[in-house]
Amino acid sequence: MKDLHLSKVYQLLEPGPVVLLTTAHKGRANVMTMSWHMMVEFEPPLVACVVSDANHSFKALRATKECVIAIPAVELATKVVSIGNCTGREVDKFERFSLTPAPAERVAPPLIAECFANLECKVVDTRLVSKFNLFVLEVVKAWTDPAQRHPKTIHHRGNGKFAVDGEFIKLKSKMP
Amino acid sequence: MKDLHLSKVYQLLEPGPVVLLTTAHKGRANVMTMSWHMMVEFEPPLVACVVSDANHSFKALRATKECVIAIPAVELATKVVSIGNCTGREVDKFERFSLTPAPAERVAPPLIAECFANLECKVVDTRLVSKFNLFVLEVVKAWTDPAQRHPKTIHHRGNGKFAVDGEFIKLKSKMP
Repeated sequence: MKDLHLSKVYQLLEPGPVVLLTTAHKGRANVMTMSWHMMVEFEPPLVACVVSDANHSFKALRATKECVIAIPAVELATKVVSIGNCTGREVDKFERFSLTPAPAERVAPPLIAECFANLECKVVDTRLVSKFNLFVLEVVKAWTDPAQRHPKTIHHRGNGKFAVDGEFIKLKSKMP
Repeated sequence: MKDLHLSKVYQLLEPGPVVLLTTAHKGRANVMTMSWHMMVEFEPPLVACVVSDANHSFKALRATKECVIAIPAVELATKVVSIGNCTGREVDKFERFSLTPAPAERVAPPLIAECFANLECKVVDTRLVSKFNLFVLEVVKAWTDPAQRHPKTIHHRGNGKFAVDGEFIKLKSKMP
């Protein structure tokens, strides 16, 4: 895993990929599948996400205020869906899905070695948690896997249908 | 334009497409390009988005609490970037980019006839506006264009680079 400058984090999340979210609570790591996230600020990178209070991860995130957003390439799609189909209440998902937890630098939840990017996050605003389950996170450390050179991400269209990244285009933009 | 049931709105935004946002203020419509948005609730559909206070649209959105999220297919990509490269302070963007405004049913800002989906929205929470420029919207009415049958969306990776929808895959998911 290689350091990614925090100013580049938005380039990973702005396209809207399905991601994995890891938490650690009372000595146990868990992972869920998540599609409801967006960038809020470039640098330091802020991210908003919705973690339903029906998810086992909700309690861990609210209590520990730490998580890792791990971004899987399309090769992991089947696992990503299976992770979303079961709950950490009943299953050790790292073991069941042969995911390799790797120690993070700034937070307790683990990175996922199989993902091409990992973002260590701390919760910085909880004002919309009770009404909307909406957390605002700051990305405090970011990693990418240089061995995964052109990862394609998946984008959920509902009911297990996904669009995979296809063609790339480049246009003259003044936007970052 | 055809009615879209509100329970299906998340299927349009969850994949993370670049969208256009229209507002209307003091008798003038405007449009901006936006990539920082996410779903917050299925039904009624709630959406969070970040509209920078540097954008001309910010003031209109905060004052009128209404907007339309219009979703363009890849054929509009060049226009979408050009819309993001200029400001409604100086330009009538509907005119400059030959966009066809169509009347919405529940809000004042116009739909964009060239887009394959249009979501009429009202602002329902502003608690995170002053700190993060983050608005929570409720989609009150949704439209799709039946003539655009398999629209491909674009996903911004920064600096004018976009991933276009490629292959579609279907996996067994318990998730909506």
